[in-house]
Parts: sequence; structure tokens; C-alpha cells
Amino acid sequence: MTINYYADLLKIRDARPLVHHITNYVVMNVSANITISLGASPVMAHALPEVEDMVSIASVLYINIGTLSDPWIDSMLAAGKMANKKHVPVLLDPVGAGATKYRTETAKKILKEIKVDVLKGNAGEMQSLAGEKVKVKGVDSTTSAGPDTAEALAKEYGLTAVITGREDYVSNGRQSAQVKNGTEMFSRITGAGCMLGSIIASFMAVNNDSFSSAIEGLVSFELAGEKAAARTKLPGSFMTALIDEISLLNQDSYKLADVMIQ
Amino acid sequence: MTINYYADLLKIRDARPLVHHITNYVVMNVSANITISLGASPVMAHALPEVEDMVSIASVLYINIGTLSDPWIDSMLAAGKMANKKHVPVLLDPVGAGATKYRTETAKKILKEIKVDVLKGNAGEMQSLAGEKVKVKGVDSTTSAGPDTAEALAKEYGLTAVITGREDYVSNGRQSAQVKNGTEMFSRITGAGCMLGSIIASFMAVNNDSFSSAIEGLVSFELAGEKAAARTKLPGSFMTALIDEISLLNQDSYKLADVMIQ
Amino acid sequence: MTINYYADLLKIRDARPLVHHITNYVVMNVSANITISLGASPVMAHALPEVEDMVSIASVLYINIGTLSDPWIDSMLAAGKMANKKHVPVLLDPVGAGATKYRTETAKKILKEIKVDVLKGNAGEMQSLAGEKVKVKGVDSTTSAGPDTAEALAKEYGLTAVITGREDYVSNGRQSAQVKNGTEMFSRITGAGCMLGSIIASFMAVNNDSFSSAIEGLVSFELAGEKAAARTKLPGSFMTALIDEISLLNQDSYKLADVMIQ
Repeated sequence: MTINYYADLLKIRDARPLVHHITNYVVMNVSANITISLGASPVMAHALPEVEDMVSIASVLYINIGTLSDPWIDSMLAAGKMANKKHVPVLLDPVGAGATKYRTETAKKILKEIKVDVLKGNAGEMQSLAGEKVKVKGVDSTTSAGPDTAEALAKEYGLTAVITGREDYVSNGRQSAQVKNGTEMFSRITGAGCMLGSIIASFMAVNNDSFSSAIEGLVSFELAGEKAAARTKLPGSFMTALIDEISLLNQDSYKLADVMIQ
Repeated sequence: MTINYYADLLKIRDARPLVHHITNYVVMNVSANITISLGASPVMAHALPEVEDMVSIASVLYINIGTLSDPWIDSMLAAGKMANKKHVPVLLDPVGAGATKYRTETAKKILKEIKVDVLKGNAGEMQSLAGEKVKVKGVDSTTSAGPDTAEALAKEYGLTAVITGREDYVSNGRQSAQVKNGTEMFSRITGAGCMLGSIIASFMAVNNDSFSSAIEGLVSFELAGEKAAARTKLPGSFMTALIDEISLLNQDSYKLADVMIQ
Repeated sequence: MTINYYADLLKIRDARPLVHHITNYVVMNVSANITISLGASPVMAHALPEVEDMVSIASVLYINIGTLSDPWIDSMLAAGKMANKKHVPVLLDPVGAGATKYRTETAKKILKEIKVDVLKGNAGEMQSLAGEKVKVKGVDSTTSAGPDTAEALAKEYGLTAVITGREDYVSNGRQSAQVKNGTEMFSRITGAGCMLGSIIASFMAVNNDSFSSAIEGLVSFELAGEKAAARTKLPGSFMTALIDEISLLNQDSYKLADVMIQ
């Protein structure tokens, strides 16, 4: 299987697809910035009276439950249903699933009521959704999960599952991939996972094969992270460098992709 | 007509006027930082039980509908009415008007119920408020608008209209101005327009002629942007440089103002 | 009295305690980043259906009323009561108390209904809570307050009071401290006080003597600020440098602690 990283990056830069985010307060600024850096056009809109209109003109919907509350859940569901109706792909990031019952149940409710195309989370979040016993501390994972969990989730919900960590696992239930790119610096800043969500969503907007668009997003984000980490090991400076490096991705960048697809 | 850029900048740095923001989640941090960098004092307060009190001690009210929802609209209206009563000037930034009916109608409702002094938006937003047929993609403009749209809005609502873009147009219905400063880098970060709103609002706090304070804000922000763009073409680094350069504005900076007033 | 700055910093880096923030929109991103830079694990959760669960797995609760609204106040109270029940320490940052009645009364309500361990604010905020006549402009203090106000608040509410300013005062009603570290650059960025709250909270998570953990947090934050200010006097760059320098704190850093304990 060939992944057309650079061709799809160029499609993003050319089409500037609208990425509708319903995401958490913590990362809204950096998520918008990283999306623009990649070449796409972010919009944040969470109010029930407008989410259906907004998602109807968007190329992808990215739902992230990082600072959820009841009115936002209503909007996530309404936006997701309209996305399904309009064939707009949906990415769900179940931030903190497993940490509180509220988050776990909200993530499951979204998965049940909406056709999600890509489900991306860290090990703890994904294991808790897969029904595995796991201890989650806040929004950081203290566990690890592998290809089996990804495959189980992919099959259960009929989607592409992405488990992030030192190594990342992607599965659509039929094919699986392991991505070894990335940097330990991602754990030194807030919102790395959320920004990755924006990047994957941007690729979903131009590539409707969610298995390959998930890999494209993962690899793009992690390669930029590697470059940024080569510039600095300090967290404040790294955050700035990461946004810079996303904008610098080019054809050569992808020569360092470390992906195994089975 | 003479614009006293530097004298008014010094007034801001001296008086540190309180700029009451009711703005969107995405930009709150950078908007507060850019306001402080200029020399003013930002406060964010959006709860109905306190907005009237807060605006009563403020020197200007800046309303931005970038991530609006019903409770926030109620607060925007209450704050705006109290601002009118207390003769506190009001700036409205109709982020995303034209993208959803909810945003367009909210902006119009605010314009109808509140005396707004400065209305600032990109071409798509302003055209949608002027009743022109226009296609808006999220919060980014994909169209252009000129002095006629600015003048029409200025006359319709009795305010100073500012249309941002490659060239900016300002009109109060009697006078008009064209500003050619700025940098393409503003389109590479999120919230440039929102931060510009904070800067214009800060000048409104010390100069009650809204036509000239709008020009002062525009020029100050865009000159700082030019300086920042001369330091870096990378978006993460540019954001940092922009906040730095706002703090460095001085008398000499304004020699590069490229403004035509008619 | 000996303060074990470095030993407690190492405890944070080792245990990575979960710091439950219910804080304002403006600073969520930088607060999360500074907490991670120190070595702790931040989580932001504000919804009533989950705050009790979240605080139950947290090591400390940090309540900040910077952009409060009614639903958030309900959650602050619920989280605080559960924290008390579970013996999780509580830090309250009464941002803007004195500026509006809503903020002053909310801070007092929290102090009345919850056992707060550390109350930290600027002079205007703390004086308004101490019942002193004071004029507060937004969220910036325009007044000064000294050890008497700190001691009065400490005694009234049975907590450690921290008043920040050019010099900082700490009192638990029996002992008091004066901290002279810091930099004027803190007033050139938004959220310095809020980020300080995150740092103090992180020390509270590993040191249950709130008087010394407050001093540890203050000194750590202010020493990092001094280092950052030595690198740059520009506000955008300073913000980045501050996050960097927090991550670089080491045993030697604390040799510059300028603390007088009585």
C-alpha cells in the first residue's frame, strides 16, 4: 500500500479545507494555529444553533471532549449527525476517557449515535473504550496498548482506530500499521494529542480513505515534531518550533517516515 | 487630517485603559497579551451577572462573536447597553458573519440594539452584513470588498466601518481611508483580526474620534506585523515576534504608515 | 525553618501529581504548559457531572475565578466540597475580586463553604476580601498590601494567604514570610498570577504544609521568571522563556531565593 503523503499535503494547501473543530478550551489557540500552519482552515463553533450549519460547509468534523459539558455534548451529537447526513468525515478524540465516568460514557454515546471515521486516543483512553481494565490519571496515559486494542476498536465500531504512544498503532480492522516516528518532547507540552487530531482531520478532508489519512496525519505531525525537537529540548521553545515545522513540511520530510503496514 | 499615532500610543501607555473584552475562546490569551504589550489593561468577563459592572469601570468594550453561544449573546447585549448608557465606546467584530445564519443574525441584532462605534471585519463578514451576496468559508474571507461596502455600512449604522484585507478600508460615512500596511503573515496565524480588534479598542479608549482611532489601531498593528515578518516567515515564531513588536512601537515606527485619507 | 525547595521539586517530577484546574479560559493553555514544565500533570475539568470524580483522583484542586459564570461556580463549590471530603488540598485564586460584586461575592462564598488551604491574590483582590476599602481596575491591582492583610486573611479563614506584588507576603496566621524574588516582566504578560497558582498547587500536591509549599511555589516561579527576564525583555519572547526556565529549575537555582521568614 502506498501512502501519498506529499500529494495529499499539497491538496490541503491548495484546497484549504474547512476543519470544523468542537474541541477543548485548553488547545483552541494552538489547534487553530497548527491547522493553519499545515495549510487548512480551522473554525471553532460549538453552539447548538449553528453547529449543523457550520458542519454543512466544512470538509471534516473534529470532536474532542477535553473540556466537555452538557451543552457541548448536545452540540457534538447534533454536529456529528449532520456530518453523517452530509457525508462529512468525523474524527473523535476521547480525551480523558477512563478518567471519569462522564468522559467514558460521553465518548461511548458519540460512538453509538454517530458514525465516526477515525477514533484517536492514547492507550488509557482507548483501552477504557475497548472495555479493558485500565487506570487513567487525568488526561495523561499511564498505560500502554498495542495493535490488538486498535483492531478490537476498529472492528467494534467500524472505524479506523489510532492509538498514540511511543509507538503508534493504526487499524481499520483489516489492515494495521505501526508508526515509530515522534519525539518524547510531545509529552512535555499540553495538547500534542489534540493538535495531532487537527492534523489527521485535515488529511481526512482531502483523502477519504481514513486508514491512510490517519497515517498521513500521524506521520506529518510526528516528523515535524522530530524536526522541532532537533532545534530545542525546552518546552516553550518546542511549542513554537512545532508550529513552525508543520509549515515547513515538504517532499523530503517524508523520506524519514517510519511506518510498517500489514 | 492629522492622525496622532504616537501621542495616542503614549496616552495608552500612560493611562493603561481597561479594555473589556467579550471575545472568543480561541484568542483570549493572545488578545490579552497583545493588549498588555501595547500598554493597555485587558479584562475578559462574559457572565451576565457581572458584565454591566465590569463595563462600567472600563474605558472601552470589545465584542467579538468568534465562539458565540446564547448565554454569551445575552451578555454581549447587556454589556453593550450599559456601555451606551455610560458612554463607553463599543467595537464589534462580527467573526464568521455570513458563515452561519446564527452569526449573521447575532451581529445584526447587536448592531440594531446597541450603538456600535466601530465595526471591524474581513470582506466576507462585512459584505454579509451589508446585505451583499457573498460566500463565507468559516471565519476566513474568500472574497474582497472595497470602500463602497465600508461606506454603506458606516452610513447604515452610523459608525466607523473597517474592512480588513490586503488593503484595509475605513469609513465613517463622511471620510474614508485606505491603509496599505500589513503583511501576508497575518493569514498564517489564527486571531490576527481579533488581536487587531484589541488594538483598535485600546486606541478608542484614549481617542473618542472613532474614525481616527480605528486608523491608529490598524496602522499600529500592521506596522508591528511588518516588523515581525521581517524577523521571521515562520508562523509560530511570527506570533511571538508580533507580540514583541507591539511593545516596541515608537515614534519612528509611524514614519512607515501608508495611509490615504479622503 | 528550612524549606526543601529542591527536594519537593524532585518529588513533583517523580510523582507527576494530578493538578485539577478549574480555571479561566484566558490562561488554560499556558497554565497547562507551565504545570507540565514543572513536572506535574494538569487536567482541566469544569462540568458539574464530572468534577467530583476528577478531584477524587487528583492530588490538589486549583480554583481560579478569572472568567467565572454561574455553572462554573456550582462546579467550583462541588469540586471543593469533594476535595475537602477526600483531603485533597485546595488553592483559591480570587481573580478580579473587588472589580465586580459578582467576583468578590463568589470568592467569599467559596471561602465560606469550602476549606481552602491557600488563598493567593494580588493586593487589590486580597484587600477587597479582607474588607479593606480598595479600588480594583479589572484584574490588575493598582494598590499595594502588606503583611498585615495577609495575616488578617490567614486568621479569618484559617489558611495560608499569599499576596503577590513587587514583594510577596505569605502568612498562615502564625508565621509570615516575605519574598523578594521576581521580575517586572510578570506584569508585561497575561496570566502570570494564574500560572503561579498552578506552580504553588503543584507543590501543595507533594508538601502538605501549605505555608512552606506556598513559599516553594512562589520562589520557584519567580526564580524562573528572573532567568527568563535575563534572556529577554520582550513580552512574547518572555512568555516562551518562562515556560522553558520552569523546566530548567535545579538545585543551584534556589541559591538565589530571597526569602525572609519570621
